[in-house]
Amino acid sequence: MQIPDIQTLDRGLSAALQHKIDQKTKPLGALGRLEGLALQLGLIQQRLDPVLRQPVMMVFAADHGIVAAGVSPYPQAVTMQMVLNFLQGGAAINVFARQVGMDIRVVDAGVNHDFAPHPMLLSHKVAMGTQNMLQAPAMSEAECEKAINIGRQLAHAEIAKGSNVLAFGEMGIGNTTAAAALMAALCQLPAQACVGRGTGLDDAGLQRKVDVVEQVLQHHASHLHSPLSALQHVGGLEIAMMAGAMLGAAQKQAVILVDGFICTAAMLVASRIVPAVLDYAVFTHCSGEQGHRRLLQALQAEPLLDIGLRLGEGTGAALAYPLLQAAANFMNEMASFESAGVDGKSA
Amino acid sequence: MQIPDIQTLDRGLSAALQHKIDQKTKPLGALGRLEGLALQLGLIQQRLDPVLRQPVMMVFAADHGIVAAGVSPYPQAVTMQMVLNFLQGGAAINVFARQVGMDIRVVDAGVNHDFAPHPMLLSHKVAMGTQNMLQAPAMSEAECEKAINIGRQLAHAEIAKGSNVLAFGEMGIGNTTAAAALMAALCQLPAQACVGRGTGLDDAGLQRKVDVVEQVLQHHASHLHSPLSALQHVGGLEIAMMAGAMLGAAQKQAVILVDGFICTAAMLVASRIVPAVLDYAVFTHCSGEQGHRRLLQALQAEPLLDIGLRLGEGTGAALAYPLLQAAANFMNEMASFESAGVDGKSA
Repeated sequence: MQIPDIQTLDRGLSAALQHKIDQKTKPLGALGRLEGLALQLGLIQQRLDPVLRQPVMMVFAADHGIVAAGVSPYPQAVTMQMVLNFLQGGAAINVFARQVGMDIRVVDAGVNHDFAPHPMLLSHKVAMGTQNMLQAPAMSEAECEKAINIGRQLAHAEIAKGSNVLAFGEMGIGNTTAAAALMAALCQLPAQACVGRGTGLDDAGLQRKVDVVEQVLQHHASHLHSPLSALQHVGGLEIAMMAGAMLGAAQKQAVILVDGFICTAAMLVASRIVPAVLDYAVFTHCSGEQGHRRLLQALQAEPLLDIGLRLGEGTGAALAYPLLQAAANFMNEMASFESAGVDGKSA
Repeated sequence: MQIPDIQTLDRGLSAALQHKIDQKTKPLGALGRLEGLALQLGLIQQRLDPVLRQPVMMVFAADHGIVAAGVSPYPQAVTMQMVLNFLQGGAAINVFARQVGMDIRVVDAGVNHDFAPHPMLLSHKVAMGTQNMLQAPAMSEAECEKAINIGRQLAHAEIAKGSNVLAFGEMGIGNTTAAAALMAALCQLPAQACVGRGTGLDDAGLQRKVDVVEQVLQHHASHLHSPLSALQHVGGLEIAMMAGAMLGAAQKQAVILVDGFICTAAMLVASRIVPAVLDYAVFTHCSGEQGHRRLLQALQAEPLLDIGLRLGEGTGAALAYPLLQAAANFMNEMASFESAGVDGKSA
């Protein structure tokens, strides 16, 4: 695979951005995390007046052969049913994206169902789901590369149409198992530290899932040393396509909103391919899924929200988006001490 | 003072609300804190389809005689200057309230300046600031009662005009000192645990502020045993009026959005007058001001955001408001498993 060329942020504008932030009518640092966001936005866009344009929520969906091992309390058909729910506008991500003014694209990266055409659906099925990774690589090398390349192209297309903020979400029964396996492989952590209850496993189910991930890691042990090979062997089609889209977004200097555990695992993979992709990432929340907090730590990421979400779909990214808007808005709309005639701090 | 009559929430609707939440197309509990918010909203409004109408941000401003003791790095004139900044639309709270669709009322509860009339300004000056509480009660009993009553009337007026969500903010150089003194008095905590850097004191300034609060508490020690008397002796005019407005909002079953340290201190006072006011409160964030986290714990409050804000003005309440909207929206707009044809969890 051709490695995408991603620029690390040019920090030449940092001082000017920080000066602008500090001259706003507020005590130094009083807007907390919003100030760091404003700085990041300004550096990504290389301007003192960052603007968020046409935010798009890309929800990647795919199925997972590993569900045959009983890793989810929901049947595989729920992936397809939830995609239809997205298309009908009835899922949480529809509600929240609508609220914050984001368009939604639902990307079929590999759902085990043939969908009728729909204006919101982008059909890029690479396969009818992954293979059961207890027995075989989740996907072939060609499938993995194809998914990544499509993802990049999809991101490029949204940016070409005018967006400069891409938010990512996912749907795929079984995908917390793939995300946990990727995390364990790439962060060299035990399965126990990476596996969580997903959509709601009980204690026995959780233990079974840990066992499955351990077996998966053992089965593919000789193929987990590069991010691409790990992705191919223990990942998922939606994760691969999302990782590709993240790389594509960063190539074009768009802001990347990372949602929950699975999205963060996709960002982990992307960042192991090209570390500079992290410069463009905003980690929107820490989910209730066990493993996510530790994965965020591994990425040295500080999430914006910590409100116990564990739904995926991009919901945390949509819910955190108003904080990003607030960061841009205070830069552009707040008065400075000078312009407002407000006295500064005494020496 | 006549103690306002506030109904504790009628929890008869809890089971029906929880059932509705659980039937939405998501795993049980997967929307985390939003689910608790939805339940609270439903109970406050006594309906399964809660609606947020005409949110209003009430920013109470007043001056503090204690600034003579050097408790703030900013001069007292900044209170007045920031009020003018609010009226000109250039402060952070203007930017964020505009972003989330909240109207702003700036209430002059006791700023040491005569303002020209302005459509956004509600002039209810009780005094030109409090007395220096190192030497005298911050206000007289009559002033304190007047401030509380005006606050209640202001809240009632907004609700009569159609609002059912009142957010609270404040401006007042010196008011973290009053809030810390109230917290220490009513929670019986040492000054050290309650005092923070406010707008940005250095270590020496912080120690001076701790000393000042200790002296204030000692000076008024015999008057700190009731919430009203504590408010009168070591509070502030904006804090008193805000506490009154919170009580007024709860009397009329409106949602109360509590901002940072000073707002939380006002809620502390209000809740010591009528504990049921807490049923209507949403604690929007934990600020970077030392003391706020502990005060929230004392109130058994779990804040929504924790992003290092320490600006006041109501900024945290405005920034968290989209989460409240999301809670109402998912209740009203999300499909159920049945309506969407999505399979549930296996038994």
